[in-house]
Amino acid sequence: MSAPAITLLTDFGTADGYVAEMKGVLVCAAPAVPLLDMSHDVPPHDVEFARLTLARYWRRYPVGTVHMVVVDPGVGSDRAAIAIASDGRFLVGPDNGVLSPALFALDARAVSLPINQHASPTFHGRDVFAPAAASLACGVALDELGEPLSDPVRRRTPQAVRRLDGAIDGEVLTIDRFGNALTNLLVRDVEMVLLELGGPSRQFRLVRTYADARPGEGVALIGSNGFLELAVRDGSAAQLFTLRRGDRVTVIQQQR
Amino acid sequence: MSAPAITLLTDFGTADGYVAEMKGVLVCAAPAVPLLDMSHDVPPHDVEFARLTLARYWRRYPVGTVHMVVVDPGVGSDRAAIAIASDGRFLVGPDNGVLSPALFALDARAVSLPINQHASPTFHGRDVFAPAAASLACGVALDELGEPLSDPVRRRTPQAVRRLDGAIDGEVLTIDRFGNALTNLLVRDVEMVLLELGGPSRQFRLVRTYADARPGEGVALIGSNGFLELAVRDGSAAQLFTLRRGDRVTVIQQQR
Amino acid sequence: MSAPAITLLTDFGTADGYVAEMKGVLVCAAPAVPLLDMSHDVPPHDVEFARLTLARYWRRYPVGTVHMVVVDPGVGSDRAAIAIASDGRFLVGPDNGVLSPALFALDARAVSLPINQHASPTFHGRDVFAPAAASLACGVALDELGEPLSDPVRRRTPQAVRRLDGAIDGEVLTIDRFGNALTNLLVRDVEMVLLELGGPSRQFRLVRTYADARPGEGVALIGSNGFLELAVRDGSAAQLFTLRRGDRVTVIQQQR
Repeated sequence: MSAPAITLLTDFGTADGYVAEMKGVLVCAAPAVPLLDMSHDVPPHDVEFARLTLARYWRRYPVGTVHMVVVDPGVGSDRAAIAIASDGRFLVGPDNGVLSPALFALDARAVSLPINQHASPTFHGRDVFAPAAASLACGVALDELGEPLSDPVRRRTPQAVRRLDGAIDGEVLTIDRFGNALTNLLVRDVEMVLLELGGPSRQFRLVRTYADARPGEGVALIGSNGFLELAVRDGSAAQLFTLRRGDRVTVIQQQR
Repeated sequence: MSAPAITLLTDFGTADGYVAEMKGVLVCAAPAVPLLDMSHDVPPHDVEFARLTLARYWRRYPVGTVHMVVVDPGVGSDRAAIAIASDGRFLVGPDNGVLSPALFALDARAVSLPINQHASPTFHGRDVFAPAAASLACGVALDELGEPLSDPVRRRTPQAVRRLDGAIDGEVLTIDRFGNALTNLLVRDVEMVLLELGGPSRQFRLVRTYADARPGEGVALIGSNGFLELAVRDGSAAQLFTLRRGDRVTVIQQQR
Repeated sequence: MSAPAITLLTDFGTADGYVAEMKGVLVCAAPAVPLLDMSHDVPPHDVEFARLTLARYWRRYPVGTVHMVVVDPGVGSDRAAIAIASDGRFLVGPDNGVLSPALFALDARAVSLPINQHASPTFHGRDVFAPAAASLACGVALDELGEPLSDPVRRRTPQAVRRLDGAIDGEVLTIDRFGNALTNLLVRDVEMVLLELGGPSRQFRLVRTYADARPGEGVALIGSNGFLELAVRDGSAAQLFTLRRGDRVTVIQQQR
């Protein structure tokens, strides 16, 4: 039985033809399996960005799906190449933490993929990961692909921390295309939050959705992944509040 | 019988993973239906841009195709979520006018999609539109998806207007990737047009295609959608003539 | 028997809807054939860039695949529209050299596609190439599509040249998304190369892969296409060495 899909996430862009080469390998080796582009616009070498993107989608695909992720600044070095079976899905990519979201499932298993001596040391996406993804998509068992790897690299999303005074220190995890700042903060169902964004604290209305804000108003809301998000209607929260990834965001108080 | 395809048009970009989440929902609920990316590079929140893009392609797809369009600054507000059946195709998206091209067909019918209480108020693409698109793609009837909506938002392409002196006032509808300025003007099969572009009028040769222009020459031609287009060979008409969307373009005279 | 896939390479971007129009034509005329995006981000009108991208991937696809390439500044002029059969694959596009990689195979044959009088002179991608690609994908023979063309435009990758003093003059063929400078130079399995990059010569370590460089160090390596590549770890070789496409790179000496 072949996989419902192979998905691709890379930082390659498309113009140079690297993605085209990988797709060719996949189509040859797994001709019946649909290929789905997730993105090729991950910022170059940004493993952490890709990890957060993968976290959003990997479990939303049908059991049997193969997720291929190639954001791999250490290609050809001694970092392992791995394949994972987790919660019924398969993942293939470098052992640099980018596949971590799938490693925390209880049943997650990883194997180390052998590197064929003819593989280009600068393009494992084409010569190692695509062949492995195609094999999994065609029903080859994970254990046939390589030796078990007991300790793959696990990266965790930074956790928000409650201080003694009750405030909660979190951070901006990512800025999305709309300039929304996505954090790791969970807030209650309240009306106001008092936030510190690296300066004096200020109040933000907690609204249901972007359109509840007045034009130009900065608001807080619970994003589609369940965490606190800062947004500006018809504008960019990242610009208005000079927010960057990693910036601290502290919830001083939640007010009903 | 399942649909020949589900197409996707959004302003999400791909890197953040929102499109990846939507595709996951679609693949789970309509596994046999090919997904086709139209674009995810619509300028953020630019409903009008997306409307013009959709106008180009929606009728070029086979009967039964489901077109999903998510350019939705009002997500989660009281704007309706709609599905449309029109000329044999289906469309799903917000009721903000973006789907208008399909609403002018004689047989067009629209329904209002119920918003599940668990739907994220900031991501109807994933939680409302994708499930509805998948249902239509799997053969569920439009009427089963929601209550008829008698008056969906209709946006029209601005019409050119003939003045008493015979001149025709139109406008630049969009600038394409090549810097060509696409207008709403219909011109005859002539050799010259005298145009006003916000300054003194000037003559433009009406050529058949870009390569008929001399390098650097600004020309007019009849674009692939049948309307007047301004172009510069090996250059950008938008830059050379400082044209932006919405700028007035007046045909003073057509000369054979 | 229908083709395993139709691939698309253009300089259209996706937002304007031109690619969406072409895909509609393809889906209508070849409904059973998967469409695969190679890229739509080729720099506008950059035939040479697209040619190098195509060279990377065309032969990696299964026999029967149809590669459609629309980078076509001369659209509608007297340049021919062509289809090619080469090494079991098919290619469709303008006769401007962009399809050259497939023209050097021993069995390559080309035909000239007739231009239907209703075809838009500015959009052969939609009105000429997509219908031809769909026909080939559905099993129509090449010879049924048009008259044999004996002398299609052939562009060759510039060849490196060995000087009398033993040095080898090559050039930068392209800069990829990571800022790596890809050349047309073949080097031996050595440890050092002495290169001239438009200034005094300097030594570069020849490393196996990017991660073998020290952070910020400029290195040479053998890229995934077998040719010499200049790279900087965690940086851009193009920026660090002010390299652009076409710049000369001379191998003065190879040292073990």
